[in-house]
Amino acid sequence: MNTIDLNSDVGEHFGSWTMGDDAAIFQSVSSANVACGFHAGDPSSIKQTCADAVAQNITIGAHVAYRDLAGFGRRFLDCSPQELADDVLYQIGALEAIARSVGGTIKYVKPHGALYNTIVHHEAHAQAVVDAVKASGLELPLLLLPGSVALKKAEEAGLRAVTEAFADRAYTPEGTLVSRREKGAVLHDGELVAQNMVRLATEGTLTAIDGSEIKMPAESICLHGDTAGAVEMAGQVRAALEEAGVTIKAFV
Amino acid sequence: MNTIDLNSDVGEHFGSWTMGDDAAIFQSVSSANVACGFHAGDPSSIKQTCADAVAQNITIGAHVAYRDLAGFGRRFLDCSPQELADDVLYQIGALEAIARSVGGTIKYVKPHGALYNTIVHHEAHAQAVVDAVKASGLELPLLLLPGSVALKKAEEAGLRAVTEAFADRAYTPEGTLVSRREKGAVLHDGELVAQNMVRLATEGTLTAIDGSEIKMPAESICLHGDTAGAVEMAGQVRAALEEAGVTIKAFV
Amino acid sequence: MNTIDLNSDVGEHFGSWTMGDDAAIFQSVSSANVACGFHAGDPSSIKQTCADAVAQNITIGAHVAYRDLAGFGRRFLDCSPQELADDVLYQIGALEAIARSVGGTIKYVKPHGALYNTIVHHEAHAQAVVDAVKASGLELPLLLLPGSVALKKAEEAGLRAVTEAFADRAYTPEGTLVSRREKGAVLHDGELVAQNMVRLATEGTLTAIDGSEIKMPAESICLHGDTAGAVEMAGQVRAALEEAGVTIKAFV
Amino acid sequence: MNTIDLNSDVGEHFGSWTMGDDAAIFQSVSSANVACGFHAGDPSSIKQTCADAVAQNITIGAHVAYRDLAGFGRRFLDCSPQELADDVLYQIGALEAIARSVGGTIKYVKPHGALYNTIVHHEAHAQAVVDAVKASGLELPLLLLPGSVALKKAEEAGLRAVTEAFADRAYTPEGTLVSRREKGAVLHDGELVAQNMVRLATEGTLTAIDGSEIKMPAESICLHGDTAGAVEMAGQVRAALEEAGVTIKAFV
Repeated sequence: MNTIDLNSDVGEHFGSWTMGDDAAIFQSVSSANVACGFHAGDPSSIKQTCADAVAQNITIGAHVAYRDLAGFGRRFLDCSPQELADDVLYQIGALEAIARSVGGTIKYVKPHGALYNTIVHHEAHAQAVVDAVKASGLELPLLLLPGSVALKKAEEAGLRAVTEAFADRAYTPEGTLVSRREKGAVLHDGELVAQNMVRLATEGTLTAIDGSEIKMPAESICLHGDTAGAVEMAGQVRAALEEAGVTIKAFV
Repeated sequence: MNTIDLNSDVGEHFGSWTMGDDAAIFQSVSSANVACGFHAGDPSSIKQTCADAVAQNITIGAHVAYRDLAGFGRRFLDCSPQELADDVLYQIGALEAIARSVGGTIKYVKPHGALYNTIVHHEAHAQAVVDAVKASGLELPLLLLPGSVALKKAEEAGLRAVTEAFADRAYTPEGTLVSRREKGAVLHDGELVAQNMVRLATEGTLTAIDGSEIKMPAESICLHGDTAGAVEMAGQVRAALEEAGVTIKAFV
Repeated sequence: MNTIDLNSDVGEHFGSWTMGDDAAIFQSVSSANVACGFHAGDPSSIKQTCADAVAQNITIGAHVAYRDLAGFGRRFLDCSPQELADDVLYQIGALEAIARSVGGTIKYVKPHGALYNTIVHHEAHAQAVVDAVKASGLELPLLLLPGSVALKKAEEAGLRAVTEAFADRAYTPEGTLVSRREKGAVLHDGELVAQNMVRLATEGTLTAIDGSEIKMPAESICLHGDTAGAVEMAGQVRAALEEAGVTIKAFV
Repeated sequence: MNTIDLNSDVGEHFGSWTMGDDAAIFQSVSSANVACGFHAGDPSSIKQTCADAVAQNITIGAHVAYRDLAGFGRRFLDCSPQELADDVLYQIGALEAIARSVGGTIKYVKPHGALYNTIVHHEAHAQAVVDAVKASGLELPLLLLPGSVALKKAEEAGLRAVTEAFADRAYTPEGTLVSRREKGAVLHDGELVAQNMVRLATEGTLTAIDGSEIKMPAESICLHGDTAGAVEMAGQVRAALEEAGVTIKAFV
């Protein structure tokens, strides 16, 4: 029987500002990457997000980030590995206390934004994220890009590394993401995306941007909830997977 | 046998800025109120502070505060009780993860600065702090001012409330602190302060500002480490207590 | 000939977060209260807001606030008058440089949120805001609530104090705002609100919550743009005023 | 007659935290790089620093930085050129208003920390800083490292670019700074440093780390005030320059 996880970024509010439609995306996902306060997420909105996830039986992950509210964690910050490891540990602890207070717990860690992209190649920052997870004592899996340096570091440290695919992104024939600067990098046809994801979940393959078929052994699919179109696409992906007999289930 | 706890605020650094002489004050105290990032304390300096406390067998408390780095947590912030409770819970979780990573754990909570003073009388904020400690699931004692509204709230919630005296502050005949706006509010004679604290620890009494003797059943004495003079006074207090046969020991 | 100013809060974004529909509300107002970075407003969004205001010939005001991004400036912060005055001056300077860079300039100052409400009665904070405007050397008018302590302080300091009415708020027979905690405090009937504002602009009167007629000599009307309903109401107010022959024009 | 400017970083406090001994370093310098709030500097301490500079006839420069209080502006932040330009403009405006309020004005701009180092080679960030200065309308000179990309950009934009030497840093035979990771990168012998600076001011030359003589046509010398040793060295440099008949004078 085929199973796959669907994850999305949630809880990315801050004080009076909101981001995305968490209630809508919660209809589609099995795992929620919850902001921890460094790129987004004030304690009260984090708590509400965790409570909602618990109520809907959605698995909570710590969406850790560089300290950069003004940049939403989307800007590389050249902090020292020690600073980064401690910042990540702080975020994990803060989220864990809040999740516990509403009957939940953190089940995995997913680096956010620039940190996610940086540790695809940046050895020291990748190691710092792994060190932070180890330091937390929670032995949490890390949700990462296939081929990421952090993935290797995680496994070397005895942590489980889980790979994900992006539903709305085009892939090169080599299995990497087509750069957002290229035409066609972002997919908008929900029906097509949904069918891609069914093949991913059932056969472990994807159609690359040049039409060739590539292997993509992802255990999770990342969906977005920041626009109405994204939420709709998420629903289409979930519906198509269920129709194809795929079980939607957190990877942990 | 008489025992008393000596506590002090530590870890109040932020990035490149430092505050006080933690290494020196650690020579005198049994309990360390560690900043949690909202009034002071970046994750790396918090971690170092916790590691130092663990190495010297000093008990770690969470020094929770209003979100106010620019004001060092010394300014009342009229946040909602819910915001405050969630902010405090976030801080406890963050510190707990860091403390655990260096072999320690939080043993108590002490509100900092304006929050400490506010919950002497502010019912809703007092309740919020108590709610946060309950929500953490850690059943931690709260270190508070005698007579504080928060003390009553803590006990009603089934939490232990521990009272403290301030070594370097004058008291009114009614047992409250002489306002800092009054002359003589802050004591500077280390020898006199030390003898006061010996009487506090052995007899449960203090000499008030008018010379009268008052009851002060404190389980902990707050010392300061932010100036050279304060550090020296802390040493004098400890030495005098030890000479008088008082055991210096964390209250938890 | 009757004239009145219509003002609204704009530029209240921060990084990836947006607030309200500035483009829509710009269709209705003659003055824009632009966030300065302390409760909202990153430099890039501030600049865009100023450029849009300049392009549409809308007068720019500095919407100064307590330093409180997490609380959107809606929480009283018990800072010292000196801190407040310097914080306000800093905000005025920052906004002025940005406004100038796109061909605009600050023409007035309006305190935001908790600061606005606090200086209705708080002597020291009211004086601090006035001191900051004086210190800027720009001799800017202050936009305030009628009866505000700050209004008196401004006039004593030789600054022009301009009073405003709130289109969507009910008034007591004494001419003060009905507390938001009371039923009927916020008005939702756009047609009724528009007719009220026409009477305000043409006769200087308003109907209070008990049906009595009160004098309200406001030079400006505050409109909101944070919800679709608010934007629509703003448009109704403007249309009704224009139809009644009232000239919509900044007060400075 | 030989003249040279001596500059130093000042006003790098934040709330309750202080940095360096500004009063002491003000005895030695002719120009003060004043923090603007993004890496350090709260409005009240900025104001005090400006007032002190004005009282002592020291020229004020805007020490602009990446938005990074936690990292003291010492960490590269991969913000967009537009964000950077707007952030810098915001800082210039804020400082200018505060400087004016105490009778001063900004006379130059010096990028701080990671920003200073980044725009030695980073074309887009260099251009952004130049764009911000142009946007301010103040036509301020920029104080930069010799050979910096920003220097070329400034001149292309019609701004004056002023180069500085670092008194306490060793130079390569090529005239670049010896990396701090190399042995001998930082000089500690005040007497030697002072003699180096006399030669720099009178002959435009320096002795490189290998003993060779190099040309160094700096118009300003950067001194430090963050440690007691640094302050003493600054005094030695000034005394030696004065003894050698060099006039200490701001470059603008």
